[in-house]
Amino acid sequence: MRVVTFGEAMIRLSPPNFLRLEQTNILDITVGGGELNVAIALSRLSLDTEWVSALPKNPLGYLIRNKAREHGVETKNIYWNENARAGLYFLEFGAAPRASNVLYDRANSAISQIKPGEIDWNSIFQNCDLFHVSGITPALSDNAAEVTWEAVQAAKKSGCQVSYDLNYRGKLWSPEKAKAIQTPLMSCVDILITTEEDTEVVFDIKEDTYEKVAEKLAEVFNFKVVTITLRETPSVWKNTWTAIAYADGKIYRDNVYDVEVVDRVGSGDSYSAGFIYGYLKEGVQAGVRYGNVLSALKHSNPGDFNWSTLPEVERLLKNRGLRITR
Amino acid sequence: MRVVTFGEAMIRLSPPNFLRLEQTNILDITVGGGELNVAIALSRLSLDTEWVSALPKNPLGYLIRNKAREHGVETKNIYWNENARAGLYFLEFGAAPRASNVLYDRANSAISQIKPGEIDWNSIFQNCDLFHVSGITPALSDNAAEVTWEAVQAAKKSGCQVSYDLNYRGKLWSPEKAKAIQTPLMSCVDILITTEEDTEVVFDIKEDTYEKVAEKLAEVFNFKVVTITLRETPSVWKNTWTAIAYADGKIYRDNVYDVEVVDRVGSGDSYSAGFIYGYLKEGVQAGVRYGNVLSALKHSNPGDFNWSTLPEVERLLKNRGLRITR
Amino acid sequence: MRVVTFGEAMIRLSPPNFLRLEQTNILDITVGGGELNVAIALSRLSLDTEWVSALPKNPLGYLIRNKAREHGVETKNIYWNENARAGLYFLEFGAAPRASNVLYDRANSAISQIKPGEIDWNSIFQNCDLFHVSGITPALSDNAAEVTWEAVQAAKKSGCQVSYDLNYRGKLWSPEKAKAIQTPLMSCVDILITTEEDTEVVFDIKEDTYEKVAEKLAEVFNFKVVTITLRETPSVWKNTWTAIAYADGKIYRDNVYDVEVVDRVGSGDSYSAGFIYGYLKEGVQAGVRYGNVLSALKHSNPGDFNWSTLPEVERLLKNRGLRITR
Amino acid sequence: MRVVTFGEAMIRLSPPNFLRLEQTNILDITVGGGELNVAIALSRLSLDTEWVSALPKNPLGYLIRNKAREHGVETKNIYWNENARAGLYFLEFGAAPRASNVLYDRANSAISQIKPGEIDWNSIFQNCDLFHVSGITPALSDNAAEVTWEAVQAAKKSGCQVSYDLNYRGKLWSPEKAKAIQTPLMSCVDILITTEEDTEVVFDIKEDTYEKVAEKLAEVFNFKVVTITLRETPSVWKNTWTAIAYADGKIYRDNVYDVEVVDRVGSGDSYSAGFIYGYLKEGVQAGVRYGNVLSALKHSNPGDFNWSTLPEVERLLKNRGLRITR
Amino acid sequence: MRVVTFGEAMIRLSPPNFLRLEQTNILDITVGGGELNVAIALSRLSLDTEWVSALPKNPLGYLIRNKAREHGVETKNIYWNENARAGLYFLEFGAAPRASNVLYDRANSAISQIKPGEIDWNSIFQNCDLFHVSGITPALSDNAAEVTWEAVQAAKKSGCQVSYDLNYRGKLWSPEKAKAIQTPLMSCVDILITTEEDTEVVFDIKEDTYEKVAEKLAEVFNFKVVTITLRETPSVWKNTWTAIAYADGKIYRDNVYDVEVVDRVGSGDSYSAGFIYGYLKEGVQAGVRYGNVLSALKHSNPGDFNWSTLPEVERLLKNRGLRITR
Amino acid sequence: MRVVTFGEAMIRLSPPNFLRLEQTNILDITVGGGELNVAIALSRLSLDTEWVSALPKNPLGYLIRNKAREHGVETKNIYWNENARAGLYFLEFGAAPRASNVLYDRANSAISQIKPGEIDWNSIFQNCDLFHVSGITPALSDNAAEVTWEAVQAAKKSGCQVSYDLNYRGKLWSPEKAKAIQTPLMSCVDILITTEEDTEVVFDIKEDTYEKVAEKLAEVFNFKVVTITLRETPSVWKNTWTAIAYADGKIYRDNVYDVEVVDRVGSGDSYSAGFIYGYLKEGVQAGVRYGNVLSALKHSNPGDFNWSTLPEVERLLKNRGLRITR
Repeated sequence: MRVVTFGEAMIRLSPPNFLRLEQTNILDITVGGGELNVAIALSRLSLDTEWVSALPKNPLGYLIRNKAREHGVETKNIYWNENARAGLYFLEFGAAPRASNVLYDRANSAISQIKPGEIDWNSIFQNCDLFHVSGITPALSDNAAEVTWEAVQAAKKSGCQVSYDLNYRGKLWSPEKAKAIQTPLMSCVDILITTEEDTEVVFDIKEDTYEKVAEKLAEVFNFKVVTITLRETPSVWKNTWTAIAYADGKIYRDNVYDVEVVDRVGSGDSYSAGFIYGYLKEGVQAGVRYGNVLSALKHSNPGDFNWSTLPEVERLLKNRGLRITR
Repeated sequence: MRVVTFGEAMIRLSPPNFLRLEQTNILDITVGGGELNVAIALSRLSLDTEWVSALPKNPLGYLIRNKAREHGVETKNIYWNENARAGLYFLEFGAAPRASNVLYDRANSAISQIKPGEIDWNSIFQNCDLFHVSGITPALSDNAAEVTWEAVQAAKKSGCQVSYDLNYRGKLWSPEKAKAIQTPLMSCVDILITTEEDTEVVFDIKEDTYEKVAEKLAEVFNFKVVTITLRETPSVWKNTWTAIAYADGKIYRDNVYDVEVVDRVGSGDSYSAGFIYGYLKEGVQAGVRYGNVLSALKHSNPGDFNWSTLPEVERLLKNRGLRITR
Repeated sequence: MRVVTFGEAMIRLSPPNFLRLEQTNILDITVGGGELNVAIALSRLSLDTEWVSALPKNPLGYLIRNKAREHGVETKNIYWNENARAGLYFLEFGAAPRASNVLYDRANSAISQIKPGEIDWNSIFQNCDLFHVSGITPALSDNAAEVTWEAVQAAKKSGCQVSYDLNYRGKLWSPEKAKAIQTPLMSCVDILITTEEDTEVVFDIKEDTYEKVAEKLAEVFNFKVVTITLRETPSVWKNTWTAIAYADGKIYRDNVYDVEVVDRVGSGDSYSAGFIYGYLKEGVQAGVRYGNVLSALKHSNPGDFNWSTLPEVERLLKNRGLRITR
Repeated sequence: MRVVTFGEAMIRLSPPNFLRLEQTNILDITVGGGELNVAIALSRLSLDTEWVSALPKNPLGYLIRNKAREHGVETKNIYWNENARAGLYFLEFGAAPRASNVLYDRANSAISQIKPGEIDWNSIFQNCDLFHVSGITPALSDNAAEVTWEAVQAAKKSGCQVSYDLNYRGKLWSPEKAKAIQTPLMSCVDILITTEEDTEVVFDIKEDTYEKVAEKLAEVFNFKVVTITLRETPSVWKNTWTAIAYADGKIYRDNVYDVEVVDRVGSGDSYSAGFIYGYLKEGVQAGVRYGNVLSALKHSNPGDFNWSTLPEVERLLKNRGLRITR
Repeated sequence: MRVVTFGEAMIRLSPPNFLRLEQTNILDITVGGGELNVAIALSRLSLDTEWVSALPKNPLGYLIRNKAREHGVETKNIYWNENARAGLYFLEFGAAPRASNVLYDRANSAISQIKPGEIDWNSIFQNCDLFHVSGITPALSDNAAEVTWEAVQAAKKSGCQVSYDLNYRGKLWSPEKAKAIQTPLMSCVDILITTEEDTEVVFDIKEDTYEKVAEKLAEVFNFKVVTITLRETPSVWKNTWTAIAYADGKIYRDNVYDVEVVDRVGSGDSYSAGFIYGYLKEGVQAGVRYGNVLSALKHSNPGDFNWSTLPEVERLLKNRGLRITR
Repeated sequence: MRVVTFGEAMIRLSPPNFLRLEQTNILDITVGGGELNVAIALSRLSLDTEWVSALPKNPLGYLIRNKAREHGVETKNIYWNENARAGLYFLEFGAAPRASNVLYDRANSAISQIKPGEIDWNSIFQNCDLFHVSGITPALSDNAAEVTWEAVQAAKKSGCQVSYDLNYRGKLWSPEKAKAIQTPLMSCVDILITTEEDTEVVFDIKEDTYEKVAEKLAEVFNFKVVTITLRETPSVWKNTWTAIAYADGKIYRDNVYDVEVVDRVGSGDSYSAGFIYGYLKEGVQAGVRYGNVLSALKHSNPGDFNWSTLPEVERLLKNRGLRITR
């Protein structure tokens, strides 16, 4: 099975050991970005994956591409820009009552300068089962929004399913613009992945329960599947995670996972990847189960990426405990 | 508003990653000391601050001064000693049931050799709103005790308020000496910051509740304000923190904070700083609130210093949750 | 008092900061192995100890020996092999729901190639109070099993007590082989240290309660003492630990310790060491108490070794809290 | 004596241990920028210094300011910009035949967005002995060029001397633009610091010897002093450094220093600082001598800054050898 | 153009900062192996490359594969072995008069257990321009030698050229065995890459000059090209490097490079890669020039791999100096 | 053969990567001290060694003892002091023209508080071939000087030879005191190890050549052997090292070694150790040869200790080159 994703990946710079940015003299450098995170997680579960993006033609751009390749993600349709810069973000890790904190420095990155027509979507979507993109991509620039529009249309036309992670970023656009740009996109989307909060901010949909939110979204936009993730944050180092899905008039549920948080960035993307994997292999219920387990596991991995392997995921689904195997 | 503090700051050497001292081959080097910690926290909240001290004229002395300057604390009244050494302390981080542990190597440090008359307190206290010192300074040597006595008298005379953190250190002096030396000092103190335990050890004051302890202290020593901090340590990595204050015949209370502990050293000093800030700006109730939030935040910062900024503190007082803002 | 142990120690390589092996570019290198861990813990409690083993004559072998010597363990009866390799193991630290994970690379290590007759057990057991070995040693190779058999017989003959930690390793041998090889060994054992799980796997002994398991084991094999350790793992970072013992028809119990887990590898060995220490000094009840406290403390030390000192252990037995002493 | 400088300082990110950017997962984070480097070096030699700049109102901006303050440089005239970003640069350390390499990411930084009139130069130049700026500042943006023009005029008017480090950066502007913008500036400059190469590129001045270049520059622009630095790079890790000056019709020379290169970035700025120090204290010959020794010492300090102290500089000028003093 | 290589890659573990193995508690973990090093260097110069090998199905095997993929090397023909181990080597960095030192732990690695027929060479060599292998591969085991023999024959048959780096490893086999196994292989080799020392040890060929050695080798084995590399080691940190080639009755020469040595491991492989690149693009003279520059650059890169890019190589060939470009 | 040494060992704290003390936030922690360095080097060459000293009864004292034990040095005659502190020294690594620099903080260390009669020298010198001490020990305090005097007399009486490294430390005592205290000690010394500079400072002996200095010393003090070491420091990173000896009316010479300097601290002690080893095994010529090679090798080891093994030393004496053996 083959999945294509499209979006930005950034250089991520984070002080080690809970140091503040003002305080550190070392930064851990990794790479992350919603759609790349999804592609990598899926590649590690043994699907064929491709990540489409734009990058600057400099060592930071190469670094980002290299990390995608390291996990077996195809990178041949990256648009290389001589003049643009790599998006960056700085991440401080917190401890209760101080939340973790992100400082973005992503303006004028290569993907924000991408132009309609630059990506040959038709050839990319040959033999593709699913295309995944998040609400971050159209938020990056008007050009990026247009190219996202090209992408979902081409995906639809080629017969490949489209999953969309709503993922509202208040630092990138207003709720109004998010709604205006994304409403048309929704017409090409089969699977919507979102949270109650984002749904309310972007689409003004608020219901008593998240089950009803899912149902309402499916009704309004005619999605095949809506899946809603639910995190609780009693502290910074200990969270709970679960998700539900609505499809064919039914609600699908799963366990709530207690997670010890090494690094929660990218855990939503891991849910997306797990959902896509399970859904493509066995349907909605499996989607929720693989999504949750992959997201839970992600919290234990430093960096945006999910370093789990398929056997590890399968073993946890069979519910092995927390002892060391030897 | 301008606050002056007086006391020792030491080089702090701590093994990373919970290693024992015998085990490590790397030490993290930072700087800390009660009154410097207070000055830095207040400077970061945008007060004018000065830290008065004595330091050896060598790279370790410069390092300590540099760290004060880094946060905007005035250091022009440091007494430089060619022959003295820098105080040091070694800190091991623990995990339940092993408590964190401190090994001091501070004998014969520059400040312990300071001589009465060496500091020009009268000029220092011009335009000063509050002078802060802790019970560690007079404990360092007889000379240091005399200079502390000079300081509080000069502060009083210049019309600046005096806050005093009792902070009993059993490794530095006996309860008897602590009582004998500090009882006269108390006559110049407006605000006493302490704990039930220290009050009992130093002043033999023990009551059923800490509210009564505060009241009793105020009565005996005629303090304007007494504030008592309360830490619970169900484990090494998770504590709770709160404080109360007594003033004008009333008890002031605040939330109890659950804190995930990165580094608790200096959190009492952060309480002092927050109390001073809130108190000078808005009175006793604000003192307790700012004191608690600053102390709670400190637990998340490696090193003795509090790296919070005023907007972060204000945001937490408005009770934002533990999610990453993006 | 003098204790001798016999077994393999390996080079241990672990990624820092919860990184996965695929992800890291740094490995922490330490040394560990059940019987060396026991000897070191006992040496730090001030017993005379010797560790008998085989090592390759190369820097990795020297490194392992050096670490034993660092803690005062006698190493003069190490058999140096020019051609063998050092056993290695890779350890990934987890976070719930991902358990920590071990990858062994210990085949063909020096000790697996040891030959019967190579070790002069009779001279080693002169003036020896107790000999300790675990079920890992005979599992390493048929040769190692034979030499273990030589050892326990010689120990018995020389009048020194024998403690045996059953410690079943499914990656090294089958339950059937473990039973076949170890059953005769048990005839020389005075003190069996084990868990309910291992007892069931190796000896097919399963009872309603672990008290009954202990009693049954004592009955079947005629042990002087059986002690059973009990870990609960509500999460990866927080466990509970306790143990019971059965001797002379009585059950001995102790507190349950809540432990914050820095590194749990070697905590079973710390129990063995603590039990041996307490037992040799004051009998079974003390054995359980020292075993538990030493095991609980171990969880706070990175690496396989227990870096506690006797005063620290005594202080915790007197139940001091988790505050920093200063 | 008091010196003011004006220019950008950036966050500098460099892989440790000669790693390439594509290869590293750690970056050392420091701060650097020509005019800040000069101010810091002078402050450490005990002059009063102020650094004027613009910074973003975020942790990266605070970090840059903090580092200036750490060395005692006054920072009260920094213009804080809520919307701009911090300039960044990435530095790879080389080894022959691979030169060290810099990747800039400084577009749209706070200082490039500074506006004419935003800085109150007249009050800044009260009681100022010398104003220093380099050719990098006007190259950053048209606005920055205009503000530089304001600055040198105001300095001139206030009677403070102006030193100017030509410092041509081909990645920031063309030779033509550099000439057009800087030629008027030169009318306010007393001391020009440059190299043969830059002189040729910017002003088309090329002579047989650098002595003649200096003379020619003084003649054409009517400078009081021209000083030319000379680096030779037989390898990446070993360079030689010296400089000459021309003033009052005379050439001033000094030793050639052999330098082992830990980090050569900022060594030209150290020359400027040393020249300014020596010149203000004792005249041109001392300027060259202090400039050279400070530059030579800089090569041994990681980061852009010069961490030398005045006694160290004086000692080296008296030519102590390379033995450890004990 | 497409190049295939075949050989082992190992986990490489090296202490940082010139520490000895006995002394370190951190190891840098990278990956290296002659033929992988060649494939990676060529991939970075933009050729299509594939690396054929065998790896254990565990995280260390995945790590090795990942690093190949990171640089764009095709890894689909890796044979995954459930039971084998990853080869390891430990590297200590020296300083004169202590040479760097390697400790191998590669016995029983996956590739040594590869079996004839397991690799489908015919399909691999479709559209392949050159196959590269070194004398290390057949030295690993008799099986590996047989599979090497299969490979060169299949390459030859498919019309793809064969380059062979003689690379004698005395720790893996005797000169006699090396000669016996490799003599038949030579009949399929077009390009021999070697040193005077190895030629003498393996083939007993010794002449007055290396030019004559090259000529003699070409004559005896009927090679199209023989290229001989020449390193001088006046110290550990500073070497010189050059090479010559003999082809069509002519000697081809190039510059001698002075290299500052960060890490010389893999520089011979970089020569092979550069030679192959230049030779395939422009012939023997270009082969020597690209080989030398790539090898010289390698010495500046930590790890076995060459992180140079094509533009960097081209720039150095045009002889830019050692200054920082900005 | 058995060698005993007596002296202080300190905790050594040094910034990595050429950072200045003011600049670092990490310190490498190791242990060093002349006589311990000698004992460790000899133990690694397989002699029986014991180090006699005094240490504080705290983790820093244990750490120092552990490092001695790690190398197999006997530590049973360490005097443990509950109240004293561990000596410390801070070391900054330089690069030309900045020399490396040491900052001592050793006042009031345990050994300076040792009392005459506390060490049972007579039992220590049973079966001892040589006692080694340096001029640092008597410089530490009057008590330490007296105990040194006890030691050399007891050594002499027991028939064990005495070697003495003059090692003048200007930061510890004046030339006059050094002469007054050490002149009597010389009557018990068989082998004097020194430099021309120290000889002149302490004993006012200055001759045209160091050969004559050696002869003169032997004549004045009636030494069996005088050996003089000669370091040249063309730069910080590259030195030369050699030594000569005078005995029985003859001068013994050896090669001059070019050394690349990782860390030169302790290289004089390595010379002492090598000289002692060679001298005890084969006489004065061997002493010079082993002394030089061990000192040359030391420069490549981080920390004060020499991590060479006997085979490495022997190999270098047979003059193997700087290539990697594989």
